[in-house]
Amino acid sequence: MRIALDAMGGDLAPLSNVLGALAVTKENPDITVVLVGDEQAIRSHVPDQLPANLEIVHASEVIGADEEPVRAVRRKKDASMVVAMNLASEKKVDAAISAGNTGALMTAGLLYAKRMEGIERPALAAYIPNRKGRVTLTLDVGANMDAKPSHLLQYAVMGSLYAEKVLGFERPTVGLLNVGTEEGKGNDLTKHVYPLLKAADLHFVGNVEARDVMDGACDVLVCDGFVGNVLLKSLEGAATTIFSELKQEFTSSLINKIGAAILKPGLLRFKKRMDYAEYGGAPLLGLGSPVIKAHGSSGEKAIKNAILVAARYVQKDVNVVIQQALKSSTEESE
Amino acid sequence: MRIALDAMGGDLAPLSNVLGALAVTKENPDITVVLVGDEQAIRSHVPDQLPANLEIVHASEVIGADEEPVRAVRRKKDASMVVAMNLASEKKVDAAISAGNTGALMTAGLLYAKRMEGIERPALAAYIPNRKGRVTLTLDVGANMDAKPSHLLQYAVMGSLYAEKVLGFERPTVGLLNVGTEEGKGNDLTKHVYPLLKAADLHFVGNVEARDVMDGACDVLVCDGFVGNVLLKSLEGAATTIFSELKQEFTSSLINKIGAAILKPGLLRFKKRMDYAEYGGAPLLGLGSPVIKAHGSSGEKAIKNAILVAARYVQKDVNVVIQQALKSSTEESE
Repeated sequence: MRIALDAMGGDLAPLSNVLGALAVTKENPDITVVLVGDEQAIRSHVPDQLPANLEIVHASEVIGADEEPVRAVRRKKDASMVVAMNLASEKKVDAAISAGNTGALMTAGLLYAKRMEGIERPALAAYIPNRKGRVTLTLDVGANMDAKPSHLLQYAVMGSLYAEKVLGFERPTVGLLNVGTEEGKGNDLTKHVYPLLKAADLHFVGNVEARDVMDGACDVLVCDGFVGNVLLKSLEGAATTIFSELKQEFTSSLINKIGAAILKPGLLRFKKRMDYAEYGGAPLLGLGSPVIKAHGSSGEKAIKNAILVAARYVQKDVNVVIQQALKSSTEESE
Repeated sequence: MRIALDAMGGDLAPLSNVLGALAVTKENPDITVVLVGDEQAIRSHVPDQLPANLEIVHASEVIGADEEPVRAVRRKKDASMVVAMNLASEKKVDAAISAGNTGALMTAGLLYAKRMEGIERPALAAYIPNRKGRVTLTLDVGANMDAKPSHLLQYAVMGSLYAEKVLGFERPTVGLLNVGTEEGKGNDLTKHVYPLLKAADLHFVGNVEARDVMDGACDVLVCDGFVGNVLLKSLEGAATTIFSELKQEFTSSLINKIGAAILKPGLLRFKKRMDYAEYGGAPLLGLGSPVIKAHGSSGEKAIKNAILVAARYVQKDVNVVIQQALKSSTEESE
């Protein structure tokens, strides 16, 4: 399979992106990675003799993290992200990945990969690790800032199908991110979404508060993209802060260093479970082609895992599964 | 000074509330706590001979956590929360505290304590501990679910004044919670708020992402009440999960228990810094009387600290300070 990676997107591009791609191609001969971006910049980080499953497609422009998405995508037709998206929409690759400007990626996706039939707004999903030892598929975490009730209903349907068909969760539970568990809580949006989710053919478990997400209160969590982004980054920020502070405590004296050395294996095991880089990238569900958004601050490991997520996405034929399920549910209701 | 506590509000009421009040009255002879609620239920948890600085005011009704706020407050005129609020608005006490239904507390505040002159929407503030060793005053964290740009501007002004005059922060920095640091990011609300904050007489430092809040990216963080609630509960949830998981790792074997015993003092120090119960309660800024909302899941310690927060609020004359500052800033601009 062939996967296009925007080599220029993200805070640590192009170095981390190139290193992540090299790591994947080395270990996975069946995955061809197409690095899209400034050829000279990419070439400076790769061996003269490229691996057989690594290709470079030159793109002369880059969309910055602070550029206005719609204008940037329309103006910069030769931006690395746009070129990668075009390769996907023209089926020259099976999937596209970028760690760049989320809004621009969504804009490029809508413009070139197009929406999946019947989907009003594609959504960016993310995996949040939980204490039940699985992940909570959370969407939308930043594709659409201002959502309508019908969008959240579609997020729930897409997320539930993805969790069931791809993650293998049996009858996945669906929760609505809210400020209280009781029906009737929330803002205008959640008050309108609640009855829609309740009436839909979903295993809806009601409102879920942010503090219960990591307890595994539900398998699929829906919210608008602004709120989902805040949720995700809050959890990341808290984890980063706590581990940094603990590290400081644990190295503050010789005796503490001894205590920490004893606990290190357990700490590392737990940290690995919590590290978002382990999950690498999340799908934009509802687009015509598989598209993965990697974190803006992705290092080599996160980029590598984003490529592997894209590979699973392609392997499991997620888009076809969702499309078929949407179709059959429509036929059933007719 | 006299502080009214809704004895019936919160998940652990009335026991935790009564115990918290008893703890405060024992240690602070200058603070009189007025417990408002079902007298029989309260009496079952206090000594027959009440401390000199503990009073009981009977209220026959309770507003539940899942009741529709406006209807509940209008119907239940003798609810513990409403009676406590009335004591404050009639100046029979200096402040009122509740761990009950946030929406109902805000409704009761608007109905009885009224809005401070010139304030469109009062806001619920919270302290988020950060790595700079101080707190980030965050508002709104749940008083108003659907906010307008002018509301957030007022939150920023109130929060900045509170941080400066009461917390003693010199020229406090003000941040706008957003999904990216660049200008132009966000939803409709934040896009409209950004230029207002930029133009105001504030030390505005721009957009702040959720992951940077605990790093201390700003002293005062503004957002709408839904988003602020998600932020706060995400941080709480992450901290709870991490500490529970670490506890499990640290007690999984004898050798780990030894390692953990060595590190315990440092762990406890850090946990104490992170524990929201340490901060107890947060002010509803912008009401005519000082009102403190304690967490719904407040235990004895959180209730005790909420009462102490209310005492500092009264001591520092926060409402007068804000009112005067708002007035003089209006006069200056005329």
